[in-house]
Amino acid sequence: MSDHQSSVLFMSMSLDGFIADHNDYLGGDDDHRLHNWFAPGGEFVQLGGPVGELMDEMKSCGAVVAGRRTAELMDHWGGSHGGLPIFVPSHRPPPPAARWGYPLVTYVTDGIDAAMAQAKAAAGDRNVHVVGGYTAQRALAAGVLDEIQIHQIPVLLGGGRRLFDVLPSLVELEILRVIDTPEATHIRYRVR
Amino acid sequence: MSDHQSSVLFMSMSLDGFIADHNDYLGGDDDHRLHNWFAPGGEFVQLGGPVGELMDEMKSCGAVVAGRRTAELMDHWGGSHGGLPIFVPSHRPPPPAARWGYPLVTYVTDGIDAAMAQAKAAAGDRNVHVVGGYTAQRALAAGVLDEIQIHQIPVLLGGGRRLFDVLPSLVELEILRVIDTPEATHIRYRVR
Repeated sequence: MSDHQSSVLFMSMSLDGFIADHNDYLGGDDDHRLHNWFAPGGEFVQLGGPVGELMDEMKSCGAVVAGRRTAELMDHWGGSHGGLPIFVPSHRPPPPAARWGYPLVTYVTDGIDAAMAQAKAAAGDRNVHVVGGYTAQRALAAGVLDEIQIHQIPVLLGGGRRLFDVLPSLVELEILRVIDTPEATHIRYRVR
Repeated sequence: MSDHQSSVLFMSMSLDGFIADHNDYLGGDDDHRLHNWFAPGGEFVQLGGPVGELMDEMKSCGAVVAGRRTAELMDHWGGSHGGLPIFVPSHRPPPPAARWGYPLVTYVTDGIDAAMAQAKAAAGDRNVHVVGGYTAQRALAAGVLDEIQIHQIPVLLGGGRRLFDVLPSLVELEILRVIDTPEATHIRYRVR
């Protein structure tokens, strides 16, 4: 979206603010409901038009910052995020796989801002893809999240894990773009 | 929006799902932040274009269903909601003002669905304006909320009262209309 390098959270969220059901990222019918817009019935579809361009923006990122919980749950996506280097902010020592088996996975122990700086350097002039709601909030609180791409799904889940839960203070946003489809309202925000 | 009579919640909400700060409806800077799009600095402005039409839709409702807490906090808006009759679902006896002083205010003791039915009858062929987040959720759970008009404000409040908090189950929505302005993303949903 921006013509300068940004860190961007891409996230599907229900109107009532949930990004996953209580069973977490892996599995659960309600969780799946949030992803119907790009993978109806669990099958990825080729999206055209403005939504297709949005997906291309996500794929054109140059590095990933991911929360440890998600990274471990996903086994570090097998060692890279679609070929991209992964930076995981964590104060605890990395797990064995990340220490010995995954050269593109870097655990950063001196804070989310350091992790973001390393990811931005690794990404060159490309954007950094921020993965995980908790990590996104820590990045927001630390002032190192630049943009938020919400895919707002027309459903009320009634429960689950919220995207926004632990923010210490008010954060002003700027609406950069709205894409209106029957399956989702895609809103891109810049953090002010 | 629809060509048949509907009950409609109109609500300003932050991206993180809050509709008021912890100090509740009356006062508080964060609360005020959500209303800047129609009353910047506390002064109502005349809105044109699609957002002006949206405001006209709200004003063309024929009756109001309001939660007791809000109704009492607002002193029943002085006896009517801009001239419209007000129906308040509550299992407790009405307060003195509503018993003796406010002929257009009706406390309905046999449930939200009965309150909605009375409001729809009073509204003729016009819509019913639903006021209050808690009441909207009870109406949703009872299957008597037809539409949700969200004014989604580009801000993260970080805390306060949530619009969606107590839903017992998943509710599917249909996106009826999106109005994209710099101040807010106005999304109209039909409850399925």
